Amino acid sequence: MLESMCISARAASTVLGATDTETRNNALLAMAEALVARADEIISANGSDIARAKENNMSASMLDRLTLTKERIIAISESVKKVIALPDPLDGDEKWVRPNGLEITKKRVPFGVIAIIYEARPNVTADAAALCVKSGNAVILRGGKEAIDSNLAIARVLSDALCNIGLPNGCVAVVPDTSRETASKLMKMKGKIDLLIPRGGKSLIRSVVENATVPVIETGAGNCHVFFDESADLEIALNVIDNAKRQRPSVCNAAETLVVHENIAKAVLPLVKERLDNVILRGDEKTREIIDVNEATEEDFYTEYNDYILAIKVVSDVKEAVDHINLHGTGHSEAIITNNNENAQYFCNVIDAAAVYVNASTRFTDGEEFGFGAEIGISTQKMHARGPMGLPEMTTYKYVINGNGQIR
Amino acid sequence: MLESMCISARAASTVLGATDTETRNNALLAMAEALVARADEIISANGSDIARAKENNMSASMLDRLTLTKERIIAISESVKKVIALPDPLDGDEKWVRPNGLEITKKRVPFGVIAIIYEARPNVTADAAALCVKSGNAVILRGGKEAIDSNLAIARVLSDALCNIGLPNGCVAVVPDTSRETASKLMKMKGKIDLLIPRGGKSLIRSVVENATVPVIETGAGNCHVFFDESADLEIALNVIDNAKRQRPSVCNAAETLVVHENIAKAVLPLVKERLDNVILRGDEKTREIIDVNEATEEDFYTEYNDYILAIKVVSDVKEAVDHINLHGTGHSEAIITNNNENAQYFCNVIDAAAVYVNASTRFTDGEEFGFGAEIGISTQKMHARGPMGLPEMTTYKYVINGNGQIR
Repeated sequence: MLESMCISARAASTVLGATDTETRNNALLAMAEALVARADEIISANGSDIARAKENNMSASMLDRLTLTKERIIAISESVKKVIALPDPLDGDEKWVRPNGLEITKKRVPFGVIAIIYEARPNVTADAAALCVKSGNAVILRGGKEAIDSNLAIARVLSDALCNIGLPNGCVAVVPDTSRETASKLMKMKGKIDLLIPRGGKSLIRSVVENATVPVIETGAGNCHVFFDESADLEIALNVIDNAKRQRPSVCNAAETLVVHENIAKAVLPLVKERLDNVILRGDEKTREIIDVNEATEEDFYTEYNDYILAIKVVSDVKEAVDHINLHGTGHSEAIITNNNENAQYFCNVIDAAAVYVNASTRFTDGEEFGFGAEIGISTQKMHARGPMGLPEMTTYKYVINGNGQIR
Repeated sequence: MLESMCISARAASTVLGATDTETRNNALLAMAEALVARADEIISANGSDIARAKENNMSASMLDRLTLTKERIIAISESVKKVIALPDPLDGDEKWVRPNGLEITKKRVPFGVIAIIYEARPNVTADAAALCVKSGNAVILRGGKEAIDSNLAIARVLSDALCNIGLPNGCVAVVPDTSRETASKLMKMKGKIDLLIPRGGKSLIRSVVENATVPVIETGAGNCHVFFDESADLEIALNVIDNAKRQRPSVCNAAETLVVHENIAKAVLPLVKERLDNVILRGDEKTREIIDVNEATEEDFYTEYNDYILAIKVVSDVKEAVDHINLHGTGHSEAIITNNNENAQYFCNVIDAAAVYVNASTRFTDGEEFGFGAEIGISTQKMHARGPMGLPEMTTYKYVINGNGQIR
């Protein structure tokens, strides 16, 4: 089944990849309109997922994330429409002529076939499909079993919309089989799938990174730190750690560890404890000499809690802070709060992460916040894409060389 | 041993990565001068490799590639100096300000620690080190056992030169142990090595791609095709296949298969046979109806001969040619010889390769020929780098965000 899906996606990608901007934008409009026009069909399929979820005693918050209503489908449709306004990532060829007359064009091209493995929420199905279509890629979506009926319905609606405007079948497809075996097979379709993007929790991403033979963009793991330097403005410091920890603890750019310069620890740690009153604090030895909190073990410092828990480490200078962060971090987002330019510079140079902040919250690592528009994920790797991965990162390039008989 | 090499390389990369263009160019000059100043020492170490090679009955051509003379060391030194003139790949930060006042800089940065696994020739040691230093990366080089004494001597000379101008030990190092086990360990140093580039034959590259957990750029495999379309200019066609096959058959951008439109096969195949008089031709059935050659099996069409052997396939149109090439090719370099613009366009759009040529030889896929200067290899993957991989592709980026207390 995967084999035939890949063949169909490859054939579709060849056509889709050669379309112009207008055609792909028309395709997005058709997709957005079809979602609303066929909302009842999607809601009915979603009903099967909901019924199954209730039988399986899914938690109320998960159930809420799974549920599609007319309003939510309109919102999904609107976010597909937003992609229309983004610049075409396939624009911007570079061209030059060599002394021998060869005319070389570095041409932006789609990857071809992108696969995305993701978890519960069915809105990802439409969002990811929109970004793939805009960037000229065919997409094979493998969502979680909880949302399979919704996902298949959404894919059917989107695929029909594309066929109706003359694009081939196979541009957007959902894998109907949600078994682990099929996911494992998908990861190993080297040559048939050009890029695999996992979106979800740690264990999903680890499994993909460890097993895939297809090229992968590693996304999402965020063990992010905020460092209060000696010269930190205390108001900024407290606002940032509050925001980075509590505004949305479940996301990858939330902070998990606070690192504090020892010269301000006595002044600031009691204020942190007071401010983050619903957060469980865990501190190293020096922290616990100042405030009464549980112990932070080495394991804590490696943990992405995604919860109302914060580890605290006291350090003697910016260098120790940077070393701690580079050792325990995941290369996602790290912040320093300081009024010392030299320390800010050192932090920005030596921290090895996608996004490094001076006097701002780690929560800004996000395609919309960076001004990129929608994103497919936050890359924590250094190869190809780093940080918010938008449309340009969903493309590659090829060299097209025109000659009149040149030989070497 | 590898652990401590990685730690030392990481520390060195932090310093090297923060240096300015002038410092890195001075480093290259010091490296180039030291190679010549200490040529005797390198030649003496090379003598040990040569003696061992002779004992092991190394072939004359291999022995020649291994041998270093004063002249060859001067040439290596000159090629290091050439890298000085290339643009600094760490230049060119992009900066913008968001409505909330956040100042975002997309900053080019080195990967950090690059490892290169390569085979016999000791000049690669100096060339690769020069490209890594220029791009601000520390490098761990793992060459073949045949050249180990030469490689260690070259690394010692280069590393001393860097230390003499105040750069840390560990910027350039050769792994002294050439066992397979150590190479395998190197491939799995995830987090300690940021990028691994294999340079060498098929089995080396396959082994790296299959075993590495470190991010890899796949280079070198080139099963390249030349397609004579119906409207091909016969003189250009013959010149190109001659050049692509015979000018240097051992390299990755040499042609391995000739694909011919059936409507010109009768006219052109006898001319090909006459022109490529020292090449063994292997043809499919239709080819063998026209010229007397051995059979080309399906396996032939998948083979990168790197030798005076050429497979021939007759097709009925450009579509069949493209399908054959996309199925059997390695995504390296593919050429069409045609006077039909529509077919040229179709070929360029649908062929899935790093370099696609119209009326020119595949042999031009090369950093120097493209105008990039020196290259570290030819990437056949789509992620991060494609085609000739020069200095810009040896860097990544990070986002540095300056604020004054922004929270979300």
